[in-house]
Parts: sequence; C-alpha cells; structure tokens
Amino acid sequence: MAIRLGHNDYGKSRVRLLRVSRHADHHEIRELAIQILFEGDFDTAHTRGDNRKILPTDTMKNTVYALARQYPLESSEEFGLHLIDHFLTYNPQTSSVSVSISEELWSRISYGGKPHATAFLRSGQEKRTADLRGTREGTSVRAGLADLVLLKTTKSAFEGFLRDPYTTLKEDRNRILATSVRASWLYGREEVEFNTVWQGARQLLLETFAEHDSQSLQQTLYAMGEAVLENFEAIREIRLSLPNKHFNLADLKPFGLENPAEVFVPTEEPHGLIEATIVRD
Amino acid sequence: MAIRLGHNDYGKSRVRLLRVSRHADHHEIRELAIQILFEGDFDTAHTRGDNRKILPTDTMKNTVYALARQYPLESSEEFGLHLIDHFLTYNPQTSSVSVSISEELWSRISYGGKPHATAFLRSGQEKRTADLRGTREGTSVRAGLADLVLLKTTKSAFEGFLRDPYTTLKEDRNRILATSVRASWLYGREEVEFNTVWQGARQLLLETFAEHDSQSLQQTLYAMGEAVLENFEAIREIRLSLPNKHFNLADLKPFGLENPAEVFVPTEEPHGLIEATIVRD
Amino acid sequence: MAIRLGHNDYGKSRVRLLRVSRHADHHEIRELAIQILFEGDFDTAHTRGDNRKILPTDTMKNTVYALARQYPLESSEEFGLHLIDHFLTYNPQTSSVSVSISEELWSRISYGGKPHATAFLRSGQEKRTADLRGTREGTSVRAGLADLVLLKTTKSAFEGFLRDPYTTLKEDRNRILATSVRASWLYGREEVEFNTVWQGARQLLLETFAEHDSQSLQQTLYAMGEAVLENFEAIREIRLSLPNKHFNLADLKPFGLENPAEVFVPTEEPHGLIEATIVRD
Amino acid sequence: MAIRLGHNDYGKSRVRLLRVSRHADHHEIRELAIQILFEGDFDTAHTRGDNRKILPTDTMKNTVYALARQYPLESSEEFGLHLIDHFLTYNPQTSSVSVSISEELWSRISYGGKPHATAFLRSGQEKRTADLRGTREGTSVRAGLADLVLLKTTKSAFEGFLRDPYTTLKEDRNRILATSVRASWLYGREEVEFNTVWQGARQLLLETFAEHDSQSLQQTLYAMGEAVLENFEAIREIRLSLPNKHFNLADLKPFGLENPAEVFVPTEEPHGLIEATIVRD
Repeated sequence: MAIRLGHNDYGKSRVRLLRVSRHADHHEIRELAIQILFEGDFDTAHTRGDNRKILPTDTMKNTVYALARQYPLESSEEFGLHLIDHFLTYNPQTSSVSVSISEELWSRISYGGKPHATAFLRSGQEKRTADLRGTREGTSVRAGLADLVLLKTTKSAFEGFLRDPYTTLKEDRNRILATSVRASWLYGREEVEFNTVWQGARQLLLETFAEHDSQSLQQTLYAMGEAVLENFEAIREIRLSLPNKHFNLADLKPFGLENPAEVFVPTEEPHGLIEATIVRD
Repeated sequence: MAIRLGHNDYGKSRVRLLRVSRHADHHEIRELAIQILFEGDFDTAHTRGDNRKILPTDTMKNTVYALARQYPLESSEEFGLHLIDHFLTYNPQTSSVSVSISEELWSRISYGGKPHATAFLRSGQEKRTADLRGTREGTSVRAGLADLVLLKTTKSAFEGFLRDPYTTLKEDRNRILATSVRASWLYGREEVEFNTVWQGARQLLLETFAEHDSQSLQQTLYAMGEAVLENFEAIREIRLSLPNKHFNLADLKPFGLENPAEVFVPTEEPHGLIEATIVRD
Repeated sequence: MAIRLGHNDYGKSRVRLLRVSRHADHHEIRELAIQILFEGDFDTAHTRGDNRKILPTDTMKNTVYALARQYPLESSEEFGLHLIDHFLTYNPQTSSVSVSISEELWSRISYGGKPHATAFLRSGQEKRTADLRGTREGTSVRAGLADLVLLKTTKSAFEGFLRDPYTTLKEDRNRILATSVRASWLYGREEVEFNTVWQGARQLLLETFAEHDSQSLQQTLYAMGEAVLENFEAIREIRLSLPNKHFNLADLKPFGLENPAEVFVPTEEPHGLIEATIVRD
Repeated sequence: MAIRLGHNDYGKSRVRLLRVSRHADHHEIRELAIQILFEGDFDTAHTRGDNRKILPTDTMKNTVYALARQYPLESSEEFGLHLIDHFLTYNPQTSSVSVSISEELWSRISYGGKPHATAFLRSGQEKRTADLRGTREGTSVRAGLADLVLLKTTKSAFEGFLRDPYTTLKEDRNRILATSVRASWLYGREEVEFNTVWQGARQLLLETFAEHDSQSLQQTLYAMGEAVLENFEAIREIRLSLPNKHFNLADLKPFGLENPAEVFVPTEEPHGLIEATIVRD
C-alpha cells in the first residue's frame, strides 16, 4: 500500500499590474490581478526536496511585469496567451500552464460632459475575467465576468413548484429577482476579437435578464446563456453561476399597514444558487 | 473613588431596506442600510438591569420598515429626518437620536441604448452616505460618499518635501495619483435640495481631482473641498479622508528594460492617509 | 447546430445553524453554514419554465432546521449523511445531492482556570469543513479544514532552484515559512469516528509543519499529507492547498542597520500557491 | 465669507511588521499593523502645495522598520511610545503624533503536548489594539482588543422593556447572548506592565461575560467594564462597544416540532449595538 503524489500544481497568485498606455491626447489604463499555475514533472521536489525543476514563483511575477512592458496589453485574453506561450517555450519541465486574470474595470471621469483624457473612476465591483490553459497541444481560452449585480422589479414569478412536508414557501407572481452574475464562456478558437465579443456578450446577459419573463431563475439563466450562444458563433459553451439574492417582502401587518411590493428586506444569507452550462452541440 | 457610567448610546445597525416606487411607466428603487443610535437616560439599565426606558432595537428596525411604507423616500437625508422626528417625539427618555444611512447605488440597465424602466445594475462599491443627529434643539445633517475610487495618470508630483535620515523616497514629477474618496459635508440648514446638491458636490469632487495640477494629495484634497464650498452655499464645511493608494513603478532594470511610467504595481498596504476639514468662516 | 442544457445544479447556500445541546451540567454548541446542491432531471425548468420538479431552495433550508432538531449533530459529516439520505429518499427527480458544511469553531471560556460550562469564545478564523456527495450508488465523504494560518521561524530553506533570465530571487537558507492551510481528505468508507480522526489529522498537519526540515513548501506539503495517510488508514487521499504567504526581510541597509532575520514585512499579495493531492495506491 | 483649512492630519496606515526574537532555545514573534498620523503646521501644504514641512509617509514607514530593529518590542504600547518620542523629537512642525497598532495574535503549535519553540498558529481574528497620542505635554495610552467573539447559552434575559405601537419583540428569559467585543481602556500613567494588565483585563472581560446574570447587554457591558476598573487601578476609564449578534430561535411549528432553545439561526444583520464608557471619578 504505497503513498504517492497525485495531481499537483504550483504558481503565483494576485500578481497585480497597472498598465498605462500614454497616447498623445489621452491615456489608457488596464488593471489586472493575475494567477499563474504550472503543472509538470515536479515529483522529486515534493518527495526529495530537489528544486532543480522548480522555477520560483517570484520569477513568474517578474515575467508578468517584463512582458507587460513588451506587449501592448490590448486584452487580458491576449496577454494570457503571451504568458502561456512564454512559459511553455522556456520551461520544458511543464506539461501545462494556466493563467487566470481578473480585471478591475475603470471608466473615465466625466468632465464638462465629456470623458476625461487622463482621469478615471473605478466602475464597480464587477470584474472581467479570463481563464486560459495551455499545453503543447493548444490553449483553451475562457472569458467572462464576475460580481455583476442585477435586480429587476417585475416580470419574475416562481409558481407551480414541487412541495414536500417541509415546504412553506408561498407562490409568488411578482417577486424581486436579483443576482450577482458569474459567467464564463469558452471560445472555439484562439483568434477572437476579445474586447468586442466580451462587450457584446455582457450586453446580451444584461438585456436578457432585463426583459425575460421569468418563471424561475433557472429559466432566466438558460435564456441568458442561449442569447449569448445564438449571437456569438465563436463561443462554444457558457457557464453561469447565479446566486438568488433574496429580497423578502417586509411584513407590515402587525402595524396595520399593507405592503403592495414596495418595502423589501435585502438579505445576504441564505441565498439560492443556480448553476448551469449551456452548450452548442 | 467611585465608578460610574460615562457617555453611552445604543441602537440598531445594518437595518437594510429596498424601497420600490412603482410608477405607471417605470419603477424607481433605493437601497439603504441604516443605523439608529439613542442617547438618553439609560443609567439604571446599565447599573440595575432595569429595562423600562429601553425601547428594543428590534422596534427601531420595525419602525424603519413602517415609516418606509408611509413616506416616499425621496432621499436618505429626508428619510433620516423623518426617523429622527419620529423617535424624538415618542421617546422622551432620549436626549439625542443619530441616524446613519449608507446607500447602495443602482443604475438602470441600458436596453437598446435606452435606460430600462424596471431593471437595474449595481453601480459599484461607492456608497452615498447621510449622517444626522437630532436633539430637541435641532438636527444636523451631513451628506457624503464613501469608497469612490479615483486614479489619474498625469498632473501629479511630490517634490521638495522634508527629509530626515530615514527618508529614501525619490522626488517624483509624474506619479500615479489614486485614492478612495470618503467625503462628508455639513449643511447649514435642514431645507436643502438634497439629491441635487449631492450630485453637484460629487461632480465637483470628480472634476477637481481630474484637473488639479497636484503638488501633493494634501493640496488636491484642499482644492476639492474648496470647490465644493465655493459652489454650494448650503454647505458649511466638508471633511475629506483620502488614502493615498500607492502604485509603484515596476523595476525592470534587472531585465534590461526601461519603464517610462507604463508598468506599475498596485498595492493595498501600506497606504498614505490624508484627512482634513475645509470650513467656511 | 443545436443549443442545449449541459451540466447543471441548484440549491441553497449559507444556511446557518447553531445547535445547542443542553446537558445537566454543561452545554455544547456547534455552528454550521451549509450548502446543498441538487443534480437531476431539471431540463424543462430551464427550457420551459416548468417548475414541477423543482423543490424550492427555501424547503432545503427548512429541512436543515427540522433535521437539526431530530438528530443530535455529533459531527458535520454525520449530519451531512442524514441530509443526503433524506433528500435522495424523498426526491426521485435528483440524481445526486451534494452537501458542503463549514463549521465555525468555538472553545470554552476559561473561568477560574477551568473550561466554563455554558460560555464560549470563537477560536479563530479556522473552519472545519465537510463535503459530501451522494447518489443512489453511495456517498463520498471528504473532511477537512480551511484558513488554518501557520508560521515557523526556522527550518525553512529554498535553494538550488531553476533560474531563467527573469529570475532575481536569492537563495535563502533561513526564511520565514507561513501558510494558510486548506486541506480535505477523502474517506474510504462511510463508517468513521469523524471527530476523532479530524482532530488527529489536524494535529499531524500541525506537528509535521512545525518539525519538517523544509527545502520547499512543496516538500513540506508532501510530508504533511504523507503523515496523515500513514497514520489514518480510513483516509484514501488528501488534498492540500497551501498559499506561500511571503514575509520579506526589511531592507535596513539604507539606515546603516543590519537585519539578522529579525524584522520582516508581512504581505498579502502576491503570494505563492502550492497544491497537491497525496494518494494511497 | 472666507474658506480655510480646519482640523487636519496625515500619515501612513497598514505598516505591517513581523518582529522575531531569536533566543537560544525558543523564538518569539509579534505581528503588528501600525498607523501613524501627524497633526501640525501643514497649512501651506494644503493651500499652496509647499511640501517643505511634509515628512513623507514613506519615511514614517521606514522609521517603523528601523526602530523595530533597535528596540526589543516587548509590547505594542511601548513600541508606540518609542515611535511617538522619535517623531516628536525630530519633527518640530508637528503638534501631535498618533500611533494606532493592531496586533495579530499567534500562539505556539502544540507538539507532543508541549508548546513548540519555533512554530506558531494564528489564534484567531481577535486583535490586540493600542492607541497612543502624544504632544509636547505628554502622551495618552489606550490599550484594548477587537473582534473577540463571545457567546453564552444561558443566564441571558431581556424583559420588562419599553413598548410602542411598532414593538413586536417577545420577552425572553433564556436567549442566546453573543457579541464581538471591542474594548479600549485609558491608562492613568505611562508606566504600566502593559502585557500583564492586558492579559488580566481581557480575562476579566471573558469571565464577567461568562458568569453575569444578564438582564440586558447594557447591564452585562457595565459589569464587564466595572470589573476591569475595580481590579486595575492603572486604568482610568474603559470604553466598550458590543454588537448584539442575534441568534433567532428557528420556528419549527410548521413542521410539528417543538424547539426548546436548541436550534437557532445565526444572523449578521441587522444587529444591535450597545456602547458605553465606564469611568473612575
């Protein structure tokens, strides 16, 4: 009955980077937090303390900054591809390199009604994400977003559900629907207009959420994913993870008041969680 | 040498509320987290366990929901005034009532290029704040904002500073300037167009930050506060608390690369902190 | 080119529970946060808004509280087994039920040198975890812990590693080694003395970390996992995820001071990350 | 109607430090996060961008590390006194210097039943705090703690309280009492056995919470503060801020089950908040 090393990886997390592009009449910025993970032939490092195949995680960090200087950083996805290409090329001991990027979103300060050329404000807690994994056979690219918080005040019902002896939930024809979207979609190829598709997919997620006549968060999730797949041929599948953030109707009866869906209690926990992948066959 | 009760207060924190206003062709929402604190004659509660003058904090919570149903909730400041008026009227045992409100900001989802009537997205981590304190003599109203994260890529220097034997900082004519604005301003009277002034003050803070030719964050802070006071007569003083969020230039020399202010390392800690109140005499 | 539903699940997260057991001479408490996820035949809910097979997540929450009343809650693992058994029995539409439990740890307040019978303090940010997944074929049980922060001031080196042109890290024979342990181990059967084994495995992780003569965090991770597998036959594999929390030696040379490994700068980001599964063949 | 600078300060926050003391047979560690704030003659920095009296916050950070090398760091309070003494001595432009220190608590890993000499685990989220403010006239020292989470399962009632039309709370003779203690006490002099008194005051807070027959959190707060003042003559006043962390009895009646104070729902928000200063006359 032997003990042995199974699946393993190592790398660097939270390598943070602000890239400024200084054009004549305006500046552009991009702020990223990057994680790099290597898989490969690292058995003797674990079992014998032999570090000869271990590139320090500090070097991974340095590489991020050095490559950020040498490439224009048009998109997280392209920067991830450069990083993976670099690491696979110079590190024969690796079998795969994964890069995960979380981008903080900045928009321009409005100045006299126009976007300012060199001053920015953080757009919110929403993140743009990219998750790439490269091997000698090729690289998969997933793009997405996280922490996009949405809410609608109509067109959301939840009725006709299964009941058991522990079911006390009432049917609801007009509930608040709120969620924090986590989405990631897999591209079918490496050549994509990453920024254009990301903007388009995000907008479809927003518009579908807004207009869908929801019978459940499951149905709305499916509609959101379907809309993205129908409009972007480059996307092979999309994964959505949607917490159901409950806004409970405040009970005002003890005070002799009706509450016609006007006063709600936002809650953080517990919350529902609906997750699905929608795929193109 | 007697031991006695000194300053004390009690109340309820994190009373969360979503208020929906359902108009014929669109809905409006406002999401608040409210804290209520009573000061008053509570000595025997502390020293003898006599609760006869203690209105339960659960009742404060109920009151928030009941009043939210009965008032239109045009602004946090007005709702805070209603709460204080209610509590002071019905609670002779109180000498002062404080209400602090933190508002989550929602904007409308853009649908076909237009704002959607009933669907919203969270604008960010920025909060609109209101802090009121009422006594039988009157009520002070402070409005403000928190967690408004700003960054500019030019017009920021820090030179000519004091040096001592532990000073290693280099003079910098072109640093990144970034902060997370916490501002609160005191109104000189209770009758104010709260929403209009808040929007205007916030916009002045943004525009001054963007355009100021900064010799230090102190100087930019003062310019921001001065701009608000000069433009809004209703405001008597403004307090600004500005962390200096450092973005360090990445050192690429070891790799034979120059770094002409393009690649920076964002950091969370340590950070500078600049705080001041600007007052109208 | 059809679009269809792929892998999906749904359920309830952050169902929080405090269970008090009132014995004659002392009380016991256990505080859990529970997540329940169903997989099964939910296609028409997604594609047609048909909720007839959807047990509300609110019911999952109610079930937690009802079962917590009916079972003694000796351990998270046993409570998870009860929940899975209940849900699989009464929900033929499910193919699998997953239960993840995160336990807050409380210890007794020391009173006059002895553990108090009815008063407790939170032991820390460390969580005890349990992750179970049941199907009609059987249930797998993983136990573990998270956020267990460790640090040692000696017996930690990192030398002889791979270098490339972006490598600037110096060899280090005496660095601070610090991590936040996330561990989970898979049991080979359902009948285990869960509390005893959990305490024993945790203690082995601590002792191995403390005494290991570390050539790298990889080697220490392996030693920690190996110790657990060697001592607990009931455990089939153990997964460890160890961030390398860097404590950088403060550079005091500019001030004419040596720093013989006494003054360090703790950092949160970036951090290394070492992950591996150690398995019994 | 002139605009002018009012109260202002500036400094550095989150200066993090690990200090290792290497003795022959064991090591000691202390981990601090330090904030330094200067008040003084900084008007022209704000109004004219004149930095000649501005010691960079980067220098404050350097000073922390340089002084941490030169002093043994027996306690946060003593280190704070050294920092204040240094800054006041070399910075005539300052009128006051404030130092706030938050200490992460580490305990030794138990190894073979004994405390390990060089390996540690984080004790929890509890922090030891110190807040000092020095002027040319003298320095005040406050010590304390934060995030000490306590819970008791008996000896807690809340009855006989004030009722108004919005009161729905039921009287409770046997509720869960839970809080997260934030305490800070002011010393009457600078010469104190800081570590001994801190340990003693903390233990009194714990024991009083555990044994007090509570009629309200107000009464328990007062008893906790009184116990500290009665036992430590060096302490002039103590401030306590105690959130009332509500654990609601789960309503199991819909399922035909009684709930004799066994199953509770822990909640984070809303929460009560009780604050008071207890003083020695």
